[in-house]
Amino acid sequence: MPKLNWHCLTFLLPKGIKLAYMPNKVFVLGAGSTKYGKLNESVVELALDASKEAITSAGITPKEIQSGYISNVFGVSDKQVHMAPVIMSNLGIPYTPGLTIESACGSGSVMLREAYANVAAGFYDCVLAVGVEKITQVGTVQSTTLFSYCSDFFYEGGNGASFPGLFASIARAYLTRYKATEEDLAYVAVKNHENGMLNPKAHVRKIITIQDVMQSPVVASPLKLYDCCPFSDGASALILCSEEFAKKKGKSYVEIIGSGRGASPAAVQSREDITTIPSTVNAARQAYQMAKITPKDVDFAEVHDCFTIAEVIDTEDLGFFKKGEAAEAIRSGATKRNGEIPINPSGGLKSKGHPIGATGIGQVVEVFDQFTGKAGDRTIQDAEIAVTHNFGATGASAAVHVFKKVK
Amino acid sequence: MPKLNWHCLTFLLPKGIKLAYMPNKVFVLGAGSTKYGKLNESVVELALDASKEAITSAGITPKEIQSGYISNVFGVSDKQVHMAPVIMSNLGIPYTPGLTIESACGSGSVMLREAYANVAAGFYDCVLAVGVEKITQVGTVQSTTLFSYCSDFFYEGGNGASFPGLFASIARAYLTRYKATEEDLAYVAVKNHENGMLNPKAHVRKIITIQDVMQSPVVASPLKLYDCCPFSDGASALILCSEEFAKKKGKSYVEIIGSGRGASPAAVQSREDITTIPSTVNAARQAYQMAKITPKDVDFAEVHDCFTIAEVIDTEDLGFFKKGEAAEAIRSGATKRNGEIPINPSGGLKSKGHPIGATGIGQVVEVFDQFTGKAGDRTIQDAEIAVTHNFGATGASAAVHVFKKVK
Repeated sequence: MPKLNWHCLTFLLPKGIKLAYMPNKVFVLGAGSTKYGKLNESVVELALDASKEAITSAGITPKEIQSGYISNVFGVSDKQVHMAPVIMSNLGIPYTPGLTIESACGSGSVMLREAYANVAAGFYDCVLAVGVEKITQVGTVQSTTLFSYCSDFFYEGGNGASFPGLFASIARAYLTRYKATEEDLAYVAVKNHENGMLNPKAHVRKIITIQDVMQSPVVASPLKLYDCCPFSDGASALILCSEEFAKKKGKSYVEIIGSGRGASPAAVQSREDITTIPSTVNAARQAYQMAKITPKDVDFAEVHDCFTIAEVIDTEDLGFFKKGEAAEAIRSGATKRNGEIPINPSGGLKSKGHPIGATGIGQVVEVFDQFTGKAGDRTIQDAEIAVTHNFGATGASAAVHVFKKVK
Repeated sequence: MPKLNWHCLTFLLPKGIKLAYMPNKVFVLGAGSTKYGKLNESVVELALDASKEAITSAGITPKEIQSGYISNVFGVSDKQVHMAPVIMSNLGIPYTPGLTIESACGSGSVMLREAYANVAAGFYDCVLAVGVEKITQVGTVQSTTLFSYCSDFFYEGGNGASFPGLFASIARAYLTRYKATEEDLAYVAVKNHENGMLNPKAHVRKIITIQDVMQSPVVASPLKLYDCCPFSDGASALILCSEEFAKKKGKSYVEIIGSGRGASPAAVQSREDITTIPSTVNAARQAYQMAKITPKDVDFAEVHDCFTIAEVIDTEDLGFFKKGEAAEAIRSGATKRNGEIPINPSGGLKSKGHPIGATGIGQVVEVFDQFTGKAGDRTIQDAEIAVTHNFGATGASAAVHVFKKVK
């Protein structure tokens, strides 16, 4: 049963002082994830596997969960929407309420923000946040069609502009304006595959070369097959809680110190400049401001690399590189695990995979693993501040979160 | 851009006193709705029509909206998910973030609670809450199939137990245990059609008799065609805001004084007693407690009558009648517009219609219209406190809200 932590303080205050709020601190107490890939389990089984791992990781019992936040887009393709009651019932807590949040490929991070806000506001002390997607069973063509419903379908998907095409337009504009090359994009893919090889749960674990990328089949010029992330199944889950709750458990955890979200015009054609994504810029500004940090303080970031060009633009929009300079920085190794600002140590969407409802939560699982000594050979040394960035469609929606290691 | 109204008060407090919260008051400043029915507009057009009416009703401009909350279940069937950016862009506010919340047929009220919580916590001063569904184009058979994905599909829909069948089981159990009759159920349909005739936006505007209901084709015994609500398209929208924002606008509005949500075991077969819905009971308890009222204080209620049996059970679970006594009360006229506790003056799901993503918001539109003199001939005289109750599937999720007329 949700507990409302609202205690009136007026009796403590001098007359005439308006009562206001301070957010509760919010922590990630546990995290879990299925492997990402072409999986046999149902959407419900995947969500349960990740949830149970997160619950165990947090050292709690299901009964301590006061609310469930699910992120999912195409449950209909696995014949289960209204997923929260099914997940909660199967976790043995059928009277615990939940809901599903959808914001296309950004569902996970947008859901995280709602779960965060509810704990920050004192509605709940402990919640489950689980993202899940099960899509590979419908095949690549049908997946591409379904995903196109996440675009502004009247202007985009309905006229044949599916996401590879839309991101190809963005890539062409970027490469033209900033004199970057297709080979620069290939560096993103090669680096993320290197990282993904070290992630046992990654979908595509395969070392690739610049030549492999350049010679892979063209999907939508200038993007080739290895510029594109895979369609994946998978689920990732977190336990979020208040400070008091976290302290009682006496274990390692991670603090959410910043949260922001933003929006862009839905159709790419309506944007003033398609080499930047306004939703990312706005969400990052809010998150950094709340966290009281600048991009220079960030030790690593998980960003939304659905296509290689996206990672290039993301790293500029998040303030890690100046406009037009990311491609060269990436080529120089600045975003490798031992670089100036490691990007996507998990392997990113490109190698770890992209189960769209789970992706934004999976990024936080990586942060949790990095900050609690579970990232193995892909550990970023001495990292204390991390950022996750996840968007929907071509960035029509986005959310950015900042995390701090609790020592 | 969302404004975080969090002001630290620690400097005002004696040392050692833990800082806590009091919720902001939240108001319904405007409301709008499309007609419900078999409509030609797209899901986006419907959402826009309702949103624009709510914006006009509230006397605001779109730019004053800081966040959008959408409720929708089967956008995929009209080829548009990730609806918030499309709606916001078409309202001329493409940089205003939004998200979609899904909880089956309870999506609207579950979304309302999130929108409410965000304003109550001070995240936003003014938000748009719009529910929408566009489903009739796929036909009755495909709609029934899609809707069955909202059940616990592994146990229910997947074994042929679609919603008419599940509610028939519930009805049979109720009629057996409480000696109520099929004719008692028919009284619900007749009363809601009477009310719906007075609602220009209702889907099924047709006076029916007890005999009409009793002689209509059996859908799933004991439920007949006129025991079932229609499949509808439609959208309903609200503008929610803080007290300061409402006062600036200087117009009539409605206060949300209670909000609760609950859950039940997902599958009907897993419930201890199928003649009551635990999610309703728990949500109502929370909402009444927050509103500091008892069921006796309620002047009218909009409840979830997807099937006539549901209204019977709802009115008991909400505390208006003792267990097993609703059927007799309904037969006696207690729930008519001039009765002891008027139920569904709008016509309810049964006559007004049931566009599943919109229903929970549409109930609040009725409350707003009732409290601001827009309900015409269906006005409940001297009403000051109203309740809305909306659930998902067979009540696996539910939310209850309490509203107060601001004089």
